[in-house]
Amino acid sequence: MPNILDPRDISFLLYDLLGLEALLEATGHDRATADGILATAERMAEELFQPFAAKADAEEPRFDGTRVHLIPETEPALKAYAEAGFPAAGFAEADGGMGLPYLLCQAAAGWFTAANVGFAAYPFLAQAAGNLLAAYGTEEQKAKYLAPIVEGRFFGTMCLSEPQAGSSLADIRTRAEPQEDGSYRLFGDKMWISGGAHEMGENIVHLVLAKIPGGPAGTKGISLFLVPKVLEDGTLNDVRLAGLNHKMGYRGATNCALNFGEEGGAVGYLVGEPHRGLAVMFHMMNEARIGVGQGAAVLGVSGYLHALDYAKERTQGRDVTERDVTTPMVPIIEHADVRRQLMQAKSYAEGALALCLYAASLVDREKAGDAAATQLLAILTPIVKSWPSEFALRANDIAIQVHGGYGYTRDYPVERLYRDNRLNPIHEGTKGIQGMDLLGRKVVQDGGAPLRALLAEIGATLKAAEAMPEERDALAALVGRVGEVTMGMAATAAQDPKGYLANATVYLDMLGHVVVGWMWLRMALAAESHPDADFAAGKRAACRYFFRYELPATGPWLDLLAAQDRTCLEAEASWF
Amino acid sequence: MPNILDPRDISFLLYDLLGLEALLEATGHDRATADGILATAERMAEELFQPFAAKADAEEPRFDGTRVHLIPETEPALKAYAEAGFPAAGFAEADGGMGLPYLLCQAAAGWFTAANVGFAAYPFLAQAAGNLLAAYGTEEQKAKYLAPIVEGRFFGTMCLSEPQAGSSLADIRTRAEPQEDGSYRLFGDKMWISGGAHEMGENIVHLVLAKIPGGPAGTKGISLFLVPKVLEDGTLNDVRLAGLNHKMGYRGATNCALNFGEEGGAVGYLVGEPHRGLAVMFHMMNEARIGVGQGAAVLGVSGYLHALDYAKERTQGRDVTERDVTTPMVPIIEHADVRRQLMQAKSYAEGALALCLYAASLVDREKAGDAAATQLLAILTPIVKSWPSEFALRANDIAIQVHGGYGYTRDYPVERLYRDNRLNPIHEGTKGIQGMDLLGRKVVQDGGAPLRALLAEIGATLKAAEAMPEERDALAALVGRVGEVTMGMAATAAQDPKGYLANATVYLDMLGHVVVGWMWLRMALAAESHPDADFAAGKRAACRYFFRYELPATGPWLDLLAAQDRTCLEAEASWF
Repeated sequence: MPNILDPRDISFLLYDLLGLEALLEATGHDRATADGILATAERMAEELFQPFAAKADAEEPRFDGTRVHLIPETEPALKAYAEAGFPAAGFAEADGGMGLPYLLCQAAAGWFTAANVGFAAYPFLAQAAGNLLAAYGTEEQKAKYLAPIVEGRFFGTMCLSEPQAGSSLADIRTRAEPQEDGSYRLFGDKMWISGGAHEMGENIVHLVLAKIPGGPAGTKGISLFLVPKVLEDGTLNDVRLAGLNHKMGYRGATNCALNFGEEGGAVGYLVGEPHRGLAVMFHMMNEARIGVGQGAAVLGVSGYLHALDYAKERTQGRDVTERDVTTPMVPIIEHADVRRQLMQAKSYAEGALALCLYAASLVDREKAGDAAATQLLAILTPIVKSWPSEFALRANDIAIQVHGGYGYTRDYPVERLYRDNRLNPIHEGTKGIQGMDLLGRKVVQDGGAPLRALLAEIGATLKAAEAMPEERDALAALVGRVGEVTMGMAATAAQDPKGYLANATVYLDMLGHVVVGWMWLRMALAAESHPDADFAAGKRAACRYFFRYELPATGPWLDLLAAQDRTCLEAEASWF
Repeated sequence: MPNILDPRDISFLLYDLLGLEALLEATGHDRATADGILATAERMAEELFQPFAAKADAEEPRFDGTRVHLIPETEPALKAYAEAGFPAAGFAEADGGMGLPYLLCQAAAGWFTAANVGFAAYPFLAQAAGNLLAAYGTEEQKAKYLAPIVEGRFFGTMCLSEPQAGSSLADIRTRAEPQEDGSYRLFGDKMWISGGAHEMGENIVHLVLAKIPGGPAGTKGISLFLVPKVLEDGTLNDVRLAGLNHKMGYRGATNCALNFGEEGGAVGYLVGEPHRGLAVMFHMMNEARIGVGQGAAVLGVSGYLHALDYAKERTQGRDVTERDVTTPMVPIIEHADVRRQLMQAKSYAEGALALCLYAASLVDREKAGDAAATQLLAILTPIVKSWPSEFALRANDIAIQVHGGYGYTRDYPVERLYRDNRLNPIHEGTKGIQGMDLLGRKVVQDGGAPLRALLAEIGATLKAAEAMPEERDALAALVGRVGEVTMGMAATAAQDPKGYLANATVYLDMLGHVVVGWMWLRMALAAESHPDADFAAGKRAACRYFFRYELPATGPWLDLLAAQDRTCLEAEASWF
């Protein structure tokens, strides 16, 4: 079994839960087109990309001092991906794209990520860079750099971090010196640049944060630059690969230390306004954060599916009431604790995927002018980034455990999927950063409008949840408590900002659980009319499981938050 | 910084918490001897073993079809270990050992495991095999095989699992044919044999579970055999290495598929009575399970110490109230969420280590004839095996997270420590097996005496806990609830065994949290008189943290257990 994703669940999420059909109609497409794209993604993920995922992990990219060597399977697979039209799928028709809903594009992307996350990084980084140029690039920049990205000929990167500044972007040192021709020369060292160096495609479009000398200190002095690997005259720009990082997982994708300007300055072009680079980059980063969450979710789903297959095939032991040891052993899925582990993994991974695709649908709604979607995305983005990174990753951990000793070996894919997924709580803003974003910015912005929008949306589900009264009542009570506790916290935020933020990560996990509980309730309700009775029963059971086994963790978390516990805040560094 | 273990904490645990001095006195030793041994272990771990831990991971053992190749650092380090007398430390003086308390031996072992877990596997497997021979071997077997183990010249293995039977030992197929000279010939395939093949030392003593034809079915027909790699006449026994398993971590130790008897039968000698092999092996396995827990704990401690060092050195960002971005960045330990992560890791790893060393002290008390210690070990062994494997492992996960992107690279040791530790929830009985052992056997045996002994022991601490009233009252309430819920569950165990056992793993986590909460309270109380005020404040703060942030998770778990929730039990395989 390929065990990449479950096409039945993808179809359920897109059509029964998230209304893809309406989004297709609004953009001039139809379900047949969408189904064709999804089927192609599934087939290519299975036939072209999954087969070399293990090899890409075992034989990680190698830098010989001059160029980077990838395993030979990568480039042809990327070409086939481009030839099938995937790079163009999400871009507007005005930019040469197909103008498909973001929700559909994300679902298709899920197949590639789950099949081979290292491979998928290359086209998705190109797409992210393209999205930014589509929104902020000049017509000239679009013609020269966006068009070939849409055609799948150019790749892209996001160059934010530096060795001394990752989470603290205010402290980047890369500088951009203005030139008389309107271009800039960049000087500085960038770190953790995925896809930063390789020989595929015709060019790499680096999007680089740098400071123009004389600008304001901190984040207000950051500008964004387009720095191509290859200049228009065909010569190489002054961007040098200093080295590759050797990672725990995610090894198919090069991750680079890049030096800009060692030989006189890397040629760069300003994107957007000077000193407005961080706001521009955040446009891209919000989608990148949804992408990280979704990557975590689909890797978790893949791990869960592998574990499920194994649990149905591997025999071991007997029913606890069976005393006759000469009877045949039973598949381990028959053991209650294995079933509990599978249910936990299912509730985490499928819950995470529902959340991420829901967020993707909000991006479509926002593009269509839905103001509520903007508020929902504001409050949900840190959760969409973090919750799957923590809990879908646990599905990968459970997948190892279900396989027993075999799961700990490299003969089975589950340990690799775990290692691949372990990056997700770190990049695009660590979990701690997401907690600060949620509680320090999103909860307090617009007088609390984002959280109110979320609780109102949950309330709408509760009104139509008479089929699941136990879960409806539990979630209703929880929503009330979240509102109360948040108001209590917010009341002291101004005079005690450190106390307010001390347990931001706990708040993030708590609200994440509430949101995923809501997703499970929505799934259980939507599955009521599903023609596949087993599928519907599985969704109902996983919903029940999540409400009984997982959601109650929010109780102690809310107690902590209500008490504004200062145990960690007041611990001194010397005590450790 | 080596960051292997914290000698200050080891000394605190051994002397202030667990009364090593009395155990030393009872066995005719003194504190100076013990301190010398610990200092030697610390120095050798740091100077000899830690330096090649990363290399042993990167260059895992290789099998060329004839022999196994280890990196050249391993053998001299093992020789130095033997020359320092460590293999003899724990054995009785009658067997040529030093007769030191098990508690002291375990603490010394902790230094080696934390420094280089793959290396440490070799001597510890020899020690486990030696312990079994000391308890059950004939005088002849002891002279021929135990003595050279005590001298550090022979190594050992435990051969239980087979490809088709790991958790289900009843289903092993290896058979032992009796010979006229009283020996046996063994035929069968064994799997997951750590240290099963290498060229170090003079011999490897395999302890092998097999069935004598004609015996009872299931576990009642299992016997234990001593199968040496090299026979007395110097020829090789019929034990063939079929292949090495390639693992996620723990790579320094060979892990083997071994075939016995392909060329006519492997010569084996019965240890103990026929058909009583599992009981004999369990003697060894109980100590092995304590060893697994302790291995998990010390790897967690090492990860925590690395994270702590990094958090004190790495600067990033500023205080949340600091608006001037031109001020210098602060060490990340100044950020509340990093401090929360460190506190969580400390509470898990140091709590786990206290639990494991406490269990080691119970082994000493049991040897000295303390009946309560036997009851406490019965109930605690599954917890000692499982809780550190789950939660000290999370300390390794947190250590990666605190390091950010750097923690995800192989340039820092924290990702390797995570991979090494991930084995521990699997081997020597998976977590699911431990839950069944706890709830299905230990809780119900002797009319509930083991659990009563545990709750009584906790009660004794509570009586002397006036210095920590918040924690005392919380734990007292919890202990009462554990008793009630367990009685409620036990009342239905006979008529509904499947329902009773359905949430055994939840029970295991719940009782584990209670026990570790108790350990933290004991540590906080014992630290009151500690001369190092920072150390004492750290123990108190971590105790408070564990009670406020972690222990409340038991509330929802106890609710689930009280309800005897059947959500997972009643989910059908086709629903997944």
